Amino acid sequence: MSTIRTAETSSRLRCIVCGATPGSAGQDFRCTTCGDLLEFFFPGWTSNQDPPAFDPAALKSLWLNRRTSLDALDQSGVWRFRELLPHIPNPEEHVITLGEGNTPLYRLPRCARATGVKNLRAKHQGMNPTASFKDTGMTVAASSAHQGGFRWVACASTGNTSASMAAYAARGNMRSLVLIPDGKISWGKLSQSLDYGALTCQLRTDFDGCVRILNELVRQKPVYLLNSVNPYRIEGQKTAAIELMEQLAWEPPDHIIVPGGNLGNSSAIGKALLEMRELKLISRLPKLSIIQAHGANPFYRSVREFGGKKLEPMTADTLATAIRIGNPASWKKALRVLQATGGEVEEVTEVEIAAAKAEIGADGIGCEPASAVTLAGLKKLRRSGFVKPGEAVVLILTGHTLKDPDFTVKFHRGDLFTGTSGEIEGAPAKYLQRAPVVLDADLGAVIAALDAAERNSKC
Amino acid sequence: MSTIRTAETSSRLRCIVCGATPGSAGQDFRCTTCGDLLEFFFPGWTSNQDPPAFDPAALKSLWLNRRTSLDALDQSGVWRFRELLPHIPNPEEHVITLGEGNTPLYRLPRCARATGVKNLRAKHQGMNPTASFKDTGMTVAASSAHQGGFRWVACASTGNTSASMAAYAARGNMRSLVLIPDGKISWGKLSQSLDYGALTCQLRTDFDGCVRILNELVRQKPVYLLNSVNPYRIEGQKTAAIELMEQLAWEPPDHIIVPGGNLGNSSAIGKALLEMRELKLISRLPKLSIIQAHGANPFYRSVREFGGKKLEPMTADTLATAIRIGNPASWKKALRVLQATGGEVEEVTEVEIAAAKAEIGADGIGCEPASAVTLAGLKKLRRSGFVKPGEAVVLILTGHTLKDPDFTVKFHRGDLFTGTSGEIEGAPAKYLQRAPVVLDADLGAVIAALDAAERNSKC
Repeated sequence: MSTIRTAETSSRLRCIVCGATPGSAGQDFRCTTCGDLLEFFFPGWTSNQDPPAFDPAALKSLWLNRRTSLDALDQSGVWRFRELLPHIPNPEEHVITLGEGNTPLYRLPRCARATGVKNLRAKHQGMNPTASFKDTGMTVAASSAHQGGFRWVACASTGNTSASMAAYAARGNMRSLVLIPDGKISWGKLSQSLDYGALTCQLRTDFDGCVRILNELVRQKPVYLLNSVNPYRIEGQKTAAIELMEQLAWEPPDHIIVPGGNLGNSSAIGKALLEMRELKLISRLPKLSIIQAHGANPFYRSVREFGGKKLEPMTADTLATAIRIGNPASWKKALRVLQATGGEVEEVTEVEIAAAKAEIGADGIGCEPASAVTLAGLKKLRRSGFVKPGEAVVLILTGHTLKDPDFTVKFHRGDLFTGTSGEIEGAPAKYLQRAPVVLDADLGAVIAALDAAERNSKC
Repeated sequence: MSTIRTAETSSRLRCIVCGATPGSAGQDFRCTTCGDLLEFFFPGWTSNQDPPAFDPAALKSLWLNRRTSLDALDQSGVWRFRELLPHIPNPEEHVITLGEGNTPLYRLPRCARATGVKNLRAKHQGMNPTASFKDTGMTVAASSAHQGGFRWVACASTGNTSASMAAYAARGNMRSLVLIPDGKISWGKLSQSLDYGALTCQLRTDFDGCVRILNELVRQKPVYLLNSVNPYRIEGQKTAAIELMEQLAWEPPDHIIVPGGNLGNSSAIGKALLEMRELKLISRLPKLSIIQAHGANPFYRSVREFGGKKLEPMTADTLATAIRIGNPASWKKALRVLQATGGEVEEVTEVEIAAAKAEIGADGIGCEPASAVTLAGLKKLRRSGFVKPGEAVVLILTGHTLKDPDFTVKFHRGDLFTGTSGEIEGAPAKYLQRAPVVLDADLGAVIAALDAAERNSKC
């Protein structure tokens, strides 16, 4: 294994716009020259370097063998791939892990038939410890906070980010602060942060006001920022793509389809694909396509209307709350990987999202609404001819169905889109209208209900 | 690996009371002689057999190496241990898996300090695909249904069982039927069954009435019963204990503590421990203790008041809904493993459960209320001296915190036990009262809140 180097000395920060390479990041993780986002890069990883940075076969073998280890780092589906992550000194002491990653890759037989894409799978990042993909990035960023000696970490979020942050902070014996706007609290979404012991402050302002206060706070007090501008989070999220390739025996699919909200996840998966090709871990690039909800589509409009030259923030409105973002922080990073992989951008309606979620559910896989934009988007990409029937497609599901049980219940009771839930274009009626039937306590009545369901499922 | 035999020819069914050994089970999985429960046994597994059924070292090595396989059976944390399960013929065709098992074993540092048990860990079965331990049994029982050619599977449940059943049925291209009493629907608990496409019938009767109709149904129609009397479910649930021992390098802890509801899980874990000792996979038995909620304590009363000679059913009442069971189906199986391992039975109050859940949460681990009885029970077992400070203890957490977000929110808002939530005996106040604070959008106000929280956490 002497050919395995660590990235210890080689990861550097670089501004994605002006190219400045600061020796360390400020508390707000913004470029001090131009104010844009920073990212990690690895100067030794160019494909023409001789000798190459890594022996790809040795690296794959090392990662695989770590699966048999009882060591906490090796058991993590993130830290198992630590050669491709920024180095955390003294990892035994500083790495905070909940055993994240190690998420399943599922075939979707019914969705495959419905879309005409025979080779269709889903990588379910909702199977992470706090039930969303955020954990893969949070383990790296929280460990960085721990290594930096921080007592407090913070973010502005009411959803998956705050849940994940609160869990990792608690694990690492740090305190966590969640800033949210006063007034519109979704208690269900906050339940995890409360459970893991975060301090939650409702500020008398809007979401942008919370972000502004948060940025002031981290500049004045020793509080570590865990919002998505934190480049450590992107690095951790890369591992979903690495693990996916391992699950596919390093044979890349033709397409990977990702929900687009704040666009950090798209950026991370695309970054991993580009790095893996550079390191000769894979021989070709999948096309990475990004799907947004129509009511929260600033990136879609940026690409389609402005050729990616600018992004106009908007007031976002979609029931897929995890991607209800009008001003995505990582849009420039996402644009770059979209272009580098030759992917496409699409938008889908609320009704298309709900139907797609029910279809994924019928394959026995539960996901939150934001995850279902991937299947809804695939249908459009099939119709446009961008995805061909013989191609291999992987959908990235980002959250567990239990993240939003209300959506599921309302949809199947017909309360989500009054008047439409039984007649959604492209969704077979048998996937819908799953509301309970009320019957007398009589065997004959139950048998009649079974027979009726049997007839419906054959329609 | 020639010493590895399969259990193919050796698993048999046996009545746990009269000892009858039917060649196959009826549709209701009851003994045709005396009506009690059946269990699997493996005639070749006696410890004095020569040659032994398995070479323990070879078996451990085989199981470990399967972790590096891409095969779906090997990737499952249940089927990886298939040598100790009833054989499913043609597993490639019939095994239905969601990649269940493979659940993390966490240290609980804060809980360890609070209980004085230094070596304290939690095996989190809530990290299964549908977020409860039910998946480990369901994969085996649903596969058995598939192998039997069934089109329909069914259970009476509004909670974790129906969620798990619906997912595995969908995965296996079968239909699932959920029977529940009319009137008292917890929609959140039903959301997963709806998502995975179950047919839900609300019957105008009580829960016992649903069970009665269900038993009539499976006798008259080709519908496969997936209630907990199904002995395949117990077999699958054994793997939690096998996986736990592997994670502990086959060094058993002194105590394993399990929530007691229907008592199938306790029975399964105990059965696995006894079988592993018989097969020389472990050299000694942990004590398996079972904790019930005071409001649903028929097993506790059976052992304490009647020496296990009878169990008086009761009307169960506890907020820990997953163990709100007044007439546990598997109590005789559980009694046997309790006695065989020398474990203890305890009961805990609602307030003790809520405080324990908040304390586990403060360690960054989210669980549903029923899981938290284990920590609450450990505190009592420490006070009684049954568990000693130097002993190694593993708590079995059975469900994810997202199974019951309402409980968490109500507790931290102080709405769960009016007047008591701030003053729970044995629970440090810092773990409680995590309700959000409302502040002006002002940096100074946020810093003051941080400082106050810092002071509180040092109390």
